[in-house]
Amino acid sequence: MTPWRTAIVRADETSLRIHGYDVTALMRESSFAGLFFLFHRGRLPTAAEARLLNAIMIGVADHGPGAPSCAAARIAASGNRQALSAAVAAGVLAIGDEHAGASSNCMELIAAGLALAEREGLSIAEAAARMVDDSSAAGRRLPGLGHRVHTTDPRVATLFEMARADGIAGNGVAFMEALEAAAAAKIKKLPMNIDGALAAVMHDMGFAPDAGRFIVIVGRVGGLTAEVAEEHRREKPMRFRFDVEYDGVPPRSE
Amino acid sequence: MTPWRTAIVRADETSLRIHGYDVTALMRESSFAGLFFLFHRGRLPTAAEARLLNAIMIGVADHGPGAPSCAAARIAASGNRQALSAAVAAGVLAIGDEHAGASSNCMELIAAGLALAEREGLSIAEAAARMVDDSSAAGRRLPGLGHRVHTTDPRVATLFEMARADGIAGNGVAFMEALEAAAAAKIKKLPMNIDGALAAVMHDMGFAPDAGRFIVIVGRVGGLTAEVAEEHRREKPMRFRFDVEYDGVPPRSE
Amino acid sequence: MTPWRTAIVRADETSLRIHGYDVTALMRESSFAGLFFLFHRGRLPTAAEARLLNAIMIGVADHGPGAPSCAAARIAASGNRQALSAAVAAGVLAIGDEHAGASSNCMELIAAGLALAEREGLSIAEAAARMVDDSSAAGRRLPGLGHRVHTTDPRVATLFEMARADGIAGNGVAFMEALEAAAAAKIKKLPMNIDGALAAVMHDMGFAPDAGRFIVIVGRVGGLTAEVAEEHRREKPMRFRFDVEYDGVPPRSE
Amino acid sequence: MTPWRTAIVRADETSLRIHGYDVTALMRESSFAGLFFLFHRGRLPTAAEARLLNAIMIGVADHGPGAPSCAAARIAASGNRQALSAAVAAGVLAIGDEHAGASSNCMELIAAGLALAEREGLSIAEAAARMVDDSSAAGRRLPGLGHRVHTTDPRVATLFEMARADGIAGNGVAFMEALEAAAAAKIKKLPMNIDGALAAVMHDMGFAPDAGRFIVIVGRVGGLTAEVAEEHRREKPMRFRFDVEYDGVPPRSE
Repeated sequence: MTPWRTAIVRADETSLRIHGYDVTALMRESSFAGLFFLFHRGRLPTAAEARLLNAIMIGVADHGPGAPSCAAARIAASGNRQALSAAVAAGVLAIGDEHAGASSNCMELIAAGLALAEREGLSIAEAAARMVDDSSAAGRRLPGLGHRVHTTDPRVATLFEMARADGIAGNGVAFMEALEAAAAAKIKKLPMNIDGALAAVMHDMGFAPDAGRFIVIVGRVGGLTAEVAEEHRREKPMRFRFDVEYDGVPPRSE
Repeated sequence: MTPWRTAIVRADETSLRIHGYDVTALMRESSFAGLFFLFHRGRLPTAAEARLLNAIMIGVADHGPGAPSCAAARIAASGNRQALSAAVAAGVLAIGDEHAGASSNCMELIAAGLALAEREGLSIAEAAARMVDDSSAAGRRLPGLGHRVHTTDPRVATLFEMARADGIAGNGVAFMEALEAAAAAKIKKLPMNIDGALAAVMHDMGFAPDAGRFIVIVGRVGGLTAEVAEEHRREKPMRFRFDVEYDGVPPRSE
Repeated sequence: MTPWRTAIVRADETSLRIHGYDVTALMRESSFAGLFFLFHRGRLPTAAEARLLNAIMIGVADHGPGAPSCAAARIAASGNRQALSAAVAAGVLAIGDEHAGASSNCMELIAAGLALAEREGLSIAEAAARMVDDSSAAGRRLPGLGHRVHTTDPRVATLFEMARADGIAGNGVAFMEALEAAAAAKIKKLPMNIDGALAAVMHDMGFAPDAGRFIVIVGRVGGLTAEVAEEHRREKPMRFRFDVEYDGVPPRSE
Repeated sequence: MTPWRTAIVRADETSLRIHGYDVTALMRESSFAGLFFLFHRGRLPTAAEARLLNAIMIGVADHGPGAPSCAAARIAASGNRQALSAAVAAGVLAIGDEHAGASSNCMELIAAGLALAEREGLSIAEAAARMVDDSSAAGRRLPGLGHRVHTTDPRVATLFEMARADGIAGNGVAFMEALEAAAAAKIKKLPMNIDGALAAVMHDMGFAPDAGRFIVIVGRVGGLTAEVAEEHRREKPMRFRFDVEYDGVPPRSE
């Protein structure tokens, strides 16, 4: 049996270190958003990097019970009031490519688009247009565009302004703005959503695509705790009742 | 590091045994319900015992998208179409004391009620009446009674008839029938539900209370796979939209 | 708000039907494996079809604490003893393409291989050899072959014998046997595992690929309840301690 | 169908508010730890309150693969590489009374101990001694004391120093220090762990007990993303293999 190797945490009888840093120093001097940076990049962030990750975590934290992750958590809380962790986990499980998890796919799209521009000597706008055409031809939805509630997602402009003010906005932000414009020209107005915006900013900070999904999970778990707590405080157990319409086969016995 | 001890499965390069039985013999000769018996009792069941467990698994398998476990699974499936296991797990997480999991609490109630009868020389009807009084005094709901849809749960009579025909119905069944009668006399008509009925039958087969919850989980997972498959086949991703009404504080900035 | 449509369950105050069948009739006359067939095919199975599904559920139910799903469930049970459903769900979450979930990918491979044979007029053996070559060229592992414990998985021969005796074994079984032979000739001896065998049989019974993963989840949940119950009965909480070796950066503060 | 009421989030086509605050203002001016305060207390925190919550989140974020939550997440990641959210959720599910979740039970103990002191006119030290005696008599473990790795948990002193420097340490901190001293005198040296320390500080900030468990879940999810990412980057799928020792019944067929 080989031991389980790790380069993240080292604990002994009297100390605990994360990527080499004493956890007590991190508790005093770092931020939780900064810790996420350390976890996924292996170094402490600059003030600007920590500020942007913090804004992302807050931006994705909650979208009310109409969001699948929040709904799944509240329904689990309604049937199973014994384990708070079970309800939160049920909410996490609703996060995937289709809900709150487009960020990582979008980071892959950005990387592919910028590689295409470089490889073929295209402008970012030309590369974005090509990606829109390719997606349309393949019948794929473009990650990072469109929202079930917002016609203009207020978090997008805020995050991009912050990234520009901090000198971090780069080709990732430029690509997503070009993609939004190309989609509007070629398909229809599909406003950028927070997944698309955070994907751009995290690309420009040098994160790998999986970090895009991970930061959404971390941020949303913050909101899930609020949704589960409200469910427990305000509602009776088992209150949930969908309006269900059966449209299958009629009664039969053979 | 001590190895992980187990008395359940022994696997080597060419064989696999469960509680000593060759898995290939079980595949040929046993039933999945019978395997549950072997897992939780350590011996093979009689034909009657396997028949009753099979009826229980079928009885609890599915109750449509209005049940919290089914709803949680479908919502997770709607946001996260990549992992079938994630959607099923989200459904499992909605199973607790309040939904589909009353069986184990009910088995504890039965054991406590029968112990009370024995200790104080009461009839089963008298002991059941005392349990109803105690629950009312403490403001607790009685597990195993009442259902959000059924006024008469058709599965209850079927399960009890099967248990009687097989000679397995004993004091557990008698106690739950007495509890239902006592609740009707002292509180209101609260028809027995499938959790209460299966708790009675599993008590009479000698299972510990945790097996009551486990068999419900196993059975319901069967139905969850059907709910998740239907969600994927019939519905678009992210179709879910609750009718949400905000009633919190008005906009503020300080 | 449109109601939630379903063609699976219809419940009213006094009845419960699954795909049109009264659940009480199913409890008396069907088997849990047969119910899985009804859920995923919309009709009741023949005796042979139910027998094979039952054998598959038993075959995949448990493989001891060395299997990731069992280990994840036991570790969750060790830290969180309040919710049985949480521990079972943690085990379900370890089921994926790499563990216990190759069945659905393998069913897709079988369908692709047989379509290739038909399209290009190849024998099944020739098509299987092509699939092996294609996987090798792409650096992909072949699903359904190889096992971390068994050199010969005893469940494979048993399942195929049963399928042959029942007249159900067809091109799916033939393709997987050809694939195993082609892999042995072109790569190395990679004995078929239970995922590959059940994929073949479920293909020959006409199931879609997702049913391959679903039946593994259902069967394994049976075993997970046994693993969690044993953990609670035999072990103290928090007993788990890996042998961890840190190999990251040394202590630092800048 | 009544709509789903909530007092947390209000979203419309162009805005998103949390407890009345515009999310874009929170993104610019608040911290993720401060958002947790807003979620669970309904108002923005003071700088000191946000600083302490931030320190708690960092303190509980990760303890390496030897911690059950991290182990469960890594094992799920090893078998199921398709869904990052599934692996994180498996880790969350290992959080319970026995692992990383003692905080809420400890907050209840603190509240009970301080209520006892008030009711019976006892000093905090006397009340803590009574709680130790009561736990010993009942054979219950005291939450918040003892750690499987640390003889002195370095996070405890740091958190209490910060709480004192910020003027937040109150009766909760005093009670936990008295409890540790009483346990050392009456049972054995059981050093306070981070769950006990954060329970004290959260009590002194006025949180309800469930918030103690929720903040641990949020913080640990940060670390779980790092553990899952490392598992994917450094290890092959299905690498996991426990050293399992079978000690059940010998082979049998009857």
